[in-house]
Amino acid sequence: MKLLDHDALEEIALGATVLGTGGGGDPTLGKLMAQQAVARHGPVQLLPLDEVPNDGWIIPTAMMGAPTVLAEKIPRGTEVLDAFRMLERRLHCHAVATVSAEAGGVNSMIPMVVASSLGVPIVDADGMGRAFPEIQMVIPTLHGVSATPMAIADEKGNQVLLETPDNFWTERLARAVTIQMGCSASIALYAMQGVVAKKAMVPGTISLARDIGHTLRTCREQKRDPIEALTALLHGHRLCEGKITDVRRRTERGFARGEVDIVGTGDDAGAQYKLSFQNENLVFWRDDRPEVTVPDLITVVDEQTGLPITTEALKYGLRVAVLGFPCYPQWRTPAGLALVGPRYFGYEIEYVPLQ
Amino acid sequence: MKLLDHDALEEIALGATVLGTGGGGDPTLGKLMAQQAVARHGPVQLLPLDEVPNDGWIIPTAMMGAPTVLAEKIPRGTEVLDAFRMLERRLHCHAVATVSAEAGGVNSMIPMVVASSLGVPIVDADGMGRAFPEIQMVIPTLHGVSATPMAIADEKGNQVLLETPDNFWTERLARAVTIQMGCSASIALYAMQGVVAKKAMVPGTISLARDIGHTLRTCREQKRDPIEALTALLHGHRLCEGKITDVRRRTERGFARGEVDIVGTGDDAGAQYKLSFQNENLVFWRDDRPEVTVPDLITVVDEQTGLPITTEALKYGLRVAVLGFPCYPQWRTPAGLALVGPRYFGYEIEYVPLQ
Repeated sequence: MKLLDHDALEEIALGATVLGTGGGGDPTLGKLMAQQAVARHGPVQLLPLDEVPNDGWIIPTAMMGAPTVLAEKIPRGTEVLDAFRMLERRLHCHAVATVSAEAGGVNSMIPMVVASSLGVPIVDADGMGRAFPEIQMVIPTLHGVSATPMAIADEKGNQVLLETPDNFWTERLARAVTIQMGCSASIALYAMQGVVAKKAMVPGTISLARDIGHTLRTCREQKRDPIEALTALLHGHRLCEGKITDVRRRTERGFARGEVDIVGTGDDAGAQYKLSFQNENLVFWRDDRPEVTVPDLITVVDEQTGLPITTEALKYGLRVAVLGFPCYPQWRTPAGLALVGPRYFGYEIEYVPLQ
Repeated sequence: MKLLDHDALEEIALGATVLGTGGGGDPTLGKLMAQQAVARHGPVQLLPLDEVPNDGWIIPTAMMGAPTVLAEKIPRGTEVLDAFRMLERRLHCHAVATVSAEAGGVNSMIPMVVASSLGVPIVDADGMGRAFPEIQMVIPTLHGVSATPMAIADEKGNQVLLETPDNFWTERLARAVTIQMGCSASIALYAMQGVVAKKAMVPGTISLARDIGHTLRTCREQKRDPIEALTALLHGHRLCEGKITDVRRRTERGFARGEVDIVGTGDDAGAQYKLSFQNENLVFWRDDRPEVTVPDLITVVDEQTGLPITTEALKYGLRVAVLGFPCYPQWRTPAGLALVGPRYFGYEIEYVPLQ
């Protein structure tokens, strides 16, 4: 089994921020927590998805709430272990591994804290192949996997166990509880056995995130074009290059929503682009025509370094490139698009797959 | 053990509405549910508090939320059984009985549904000797009894188990969950063993409620003065007699708050009275001076029939008497007053015990 050390976590956190498409929050705090756990308990074992025993339970772990709050209301680091153990007790099992629910920002790192602290492996997979803002928005939902029993724990000693008739109810109740806990809570949910996980999880996400992070780091050292390297690695495109001329932000129903205007530069000089986001980047517009939408990945990076820029960090004057990457194929099914397509987010436009 | 039949439930529901001091909601729906359960499963056994085995667990059951919603969003009647059983599973016990958390409106009847349906007795006690709006406001809190583990269930199949560091956190998280469930949910909480219950519960409440209901019924038949009979039975006073001249209502933080103006009639002719309420009646004012406050009981009754009037039913023109009854003595301790005294409800006035 591969081992993930301090440097590997550095690269994975960076790569996951590219896959996080602007959302999932700044991973810095999660990375520091994970690196501290590794310094104390040793490196994390990475378990390939196809090597999970069919009858073994895996328990995804994550933070829920507003990433902006997380940076100020720092977790003790034991809450997520509480949530993990609560679910083990409820299921009368010892989980063989934990895993990431989403490949974005802080939630690429929280399961590393669990894995290192408890000495269990992390599965080389995630539930989305990217980041999304709501609990039901995972590939396991498409396979009929229940988000519950779900455990929620906070730093004050509150613990909540949910059982719900569907994953939309899980989102609704867990969101209300998380808000009361101070807009940030540790969660364990979507427990599943290996036989299910092999169909319902996205394989290879941790390795992919590490490759992305490694690529960005070595490009800097070797003075290669990081944007070319990224698009080649992720089979994507550079959608535009330009300067941010306006950012309009608003908070709606607990989400950070907004639009970004970008004026083209270089080969794109004179063109007008717009990016719409809700935590994550949702729609990329060229001259008022939607060109790329969720569930495909839209990531803003620094024009020079290729380093990803989260939606919170977008601001006037930044010179950026916008990149598009194709999503995990199961998102492109009718059921997948019903769950996370542009219409779910309130855009009356058709999804056109990025080639 | 005494048995409670259809008629006994009728009297208890009426008596509990007097003890409910205007809150707890109209008990009609709960009474119909309990009478239906009794028709199907047989009468309810009434277990005196001092006969609960010391090592036996009792589990209080109740409805939580807005009583006004309950009347429109009718429970299936099985949710409260779900909550009761969830708590039994969590505690690895079979409870020897259920019991009322509060002696008001619908919550005098919900435990009857549980007792009859599951064939367990109901303890002749409650947690307050009256009604109060928040979870932590029970005598068991004064004895260090934890409200959690607490089970919450709704008619859609959602089930939530809470564990909290104190009973204020229980109120906060359970309230948020209840609101998401549609402002009405079935709950089981404050599980305790007999040895604790004998100190921490208010004994004899069900028998007292039945005596009150029986008295009101027989006064009507025997043409005795019901108000004199009530004040004698509950060692209280008629505070005033008059006509309601104004009712001001507002909804604040999910509670029905307001004031009622009453102009004295008969012996009280010319006097001005005011009643402040938050679900329950909180303060009775005579000529702008507070005369009776929580935790003592303030109940509005019809001047002629002595039948209790809930705060929702107060309206212009009603001819009423306002009655005051002393509360359960443990509420008059410093800890009791900190939990439910006038200051907790936002009135900067001292509590003066009703004699």
